[in-house]
Amino acid sequence: MTGVASGGVTAPRGFKASGVSAGIKASGAPDLALLVSETPATAAAVFTINRAQAAPVLVSREHLTRSGGVARAVIVNSGCANACTGDGGLRVARDMAADTARLLACPIEQVLVASTGVIGVDLSIDRIRHGLPAALRALGADQGAAAARAIMTTDPFPKEAAARTAIAGRDVAVGGMAKGSGMIEPMLATMLAFVTTDAVVPRPVLERALREAVHDTFNAITVDGECSTNDCVMVLANGASGAAVDDSSYGAFLGALREVCRTLAVGIVRGGEGATKLVTVTVSGAASNDDARRAAKAIANSPLVKTAIHGGDPNWGRLIAVAGRAGVAFELARAAVTIGSTVLFKDGAPHDELAPRAAEYLKGREIAVGVDLGAGRASSTVWTCDLSAEYVRINADYRT
Amino acid sequence: MTGVASGGVTAPRGFKASGVSAGIKASGAPDLALLVSETPATAAAVFTINRAQAAPVLVSREHLTRSGGVARAVIVNSGCANACTGDGGLRVARDMAADTARLLACPIEQVLVASTGVIGVDLSIDRIRHGLPAALRALGADQGAAAARAIMTTDPFPKEAAARTAIAGRDVAVGGMAKGSGMIEPMLATMLAFVTTDAVVPRPVLERALREAVHDTFNAITVDGECSTNDCVMVLANGASGAAVDDSSYGAFLGALREVCRTLAVGIVRGGEGATKLVTVTVSGAASNDDARRAAKAIANSPLVKTAIHGGDPNWGRLIAVAGRAGVAFELARAAVTIGSTVLFKDGAPHDELAPRAAEYLKGREIAVGVDLGAGRASSTVWTCDLSAEYVRINADYRT
Repeated sequence: MTGVASGGVTAPRGFKASGVSAGIKASGAPDLALLVSETPATAAAVFTINRAQAAPVLVSREHLTRSGGVARAVIVNSGCANACTGDGGLRVARDMAADTARLLACPIEQVLVASTGVIGVDLSIDRIRHGLPAALRALGADQGAAAARAIMTTDPFPKEAAARTAIAGRDVAVGGMAKGSGMIEPMLATMLAFVTTDAVVPRPVLERALREAVHDTFNAITVDGECSTNDCVMVLANGASGAAVDDSSYGAFLGALREVCRTLAVGIVRGGEGATKLVTVTVSGAASNDDARRAAKAIANSPLVKTAIHGGDPNWGRLIAVAGRAGVAFELARAAVTIGSTVLFKDGAPHDELAPRAAEYLKGREIAVGVDLGAGRASSTVWTCDLSAEYVRINADYRT
Repeated sequence: MTGVASGGVTAPRGFKASGVSAGIKASGAPDLALLVSETPATAAAVFTINRAQAAPVLVSREHLTRSGGVARAVIVNSGCANACTGDGGLRVARDMAADTARLLACPIEQVLVASTGVIGVDLSIDRIRHGLPAALRALGADQGAAAARAIMTTDPFPKEAAARTAIAGRDVAVGGMAKGSGMIEPMLATMLAFVTTDAVVPRPVLERALREAVHDTFNAITVDGECSTNDCVMVLANGASGAAVDDSSYGAFLGALREVCRTLAVGIVRGGEGATKLVTVTVSGAASNDDARRAAKAIANSPLVKTAIHGGDPNWGRLIAVAGRAGVAFELARAAVTIGSTVLFKDGAPHDELAPRAAEYLKGREIAVGVDLGAGRASSTVWTCDLSAEYVRINADYRT
């Protein structure tokens, strides 16, 4: 049985975290987070497939390979992505890991690194070095929330999640934190998310569970169709509960992991840049799972759909138009569009007399829209947000 | 020698046009356009590949097949797309053609039909019938501008273009009109565009020239990445100049046709919903033409790039991030980003000291950005506009 729990990355036993200000952000807001496992943890990660990969992505990938999937700590900064920064940026990412490893007295390859913020600006190793001792001193099993706050950029609120489940008679926890907001349409990864668990999980099992959990959570969200240079989801399993995940308990563990990933992923969308509504897009009647996901993503990324929902306009024609151009099997004569519980188009015929009811529903902050492609039995759900003038304001002035 | 000329669809000899108010738009603005060739013209068209094809698209395609590519007239309404309107909508599209054919005393299959406006609303055949006699009476060789105005929806201004060239010692004209604004990322077609010429052009030659001209013009623009249910580009060649297009004059004809298509296509972008800047995106250093076009389209559709340009922010990192996720060959260490004539990133290194110069350039209304993928020699140019808060306002309130 999986249940939602309170807390974040420090909800599982044996993890400490901290969040401090290292002076990377001009505002002086917290910008350096440290996550430490008391013992070496099994680690797995998925990274952005963007071909312009940031220095911390390259270094973390290399460390996971060299350590054979073992990690003691993750050091994360916000305020600077350390992306497109050449050899100098790679040196800074390596130095971040080396300094953290020295302070924790662990091998450098057991330290993972992540950065988020503006692309193409050099990250100051001096500021990281200035902040690291403070981050070490601040480490605590009750500081998960501080860490979640320190990884934020344009996020309107921090994202934490935790779940508990029973494995072999023992209580196991999964916790996590994430940041998101802009440049969000993860491909095999997401912005930054860090998940912890005190279960005992062999590396191949942890890797498989992460892939499965990410597919229906972080890979099923979009804010603006953009995939960042820095996306990653990392999971650390330190085994502190003594409960081992095996074939019989895999389902329970995956359930808890997926619950944490889903909560963090939906939190990223809810806090999307300029978002005023959380929109759940479900495509059914698809000829294949791929078709369903593709159509759902096309709808979730459509500026015309997103602005219509923002304006509370039950403009079902835009949903049909996007489904029709999504490059998937689509039968207009058998298609349907639903907004909330109101069917506005079905079997080739509009039901515009119901538009006022749908318009009333669209005034809410949690919106569900459904499109039946009329071409099969597969379905997929994707989460997105509306597109507001505030999104334009945030991104027209990001660096000024 | 091809030269730009004034006028639109009535610039070539033997064409008349008109634009009147039929009462389809609640505002009373002109909403019915009629284009007539004095003699049967060779006709070719490309249509939307959206699988939700509007009734007028289905009927025009059918008429072109039945007539063997001969047309006397095009009847176009704005204010209602007649899309997703079922069998009733098909009947209305057929009736529009039948009534026009009766008034012109020509076979019904020589009349092409087009509609643009809101999807899923029934088009009133009564209003078309009310407007048709007035449109017939208003027909004139000087009424091209009135027709261009009558096909507008959210367009801020009408789009007309004309070009002249010499073929076999005779003066040949090509003219055209288009409407665009929203739901613009044509795929093998565009919103609505109508092109005329008085050259003598055999049907296969006309079809080939249209395909070639559209590839680098209407298919190289995007406002919001959306492909409509009603997109079409139609060309009518009535031979009134007596100048025949053959192998030796094909280049001159294609040049004039492309010039008209390019002017109309760029006009659609310039008048894109909420647009304040025309943005020319050139991708070079691509491994193939397909890669170049794909990366250019990804950049041109990126909300983060479009908002940065709107805000005058020379945020070259966003251009690199999009190129990296576009699914094309990309070598960060050999890539480059240019804004105007300012190189902001080259060979893996930022040149942020030049950002103020690029910021100054971005204050203009015509912006060129270039990305070199560092992966080959192919290139492609795409036109788009910036993304403004006004785009959100227009589309959040389109039907209210």
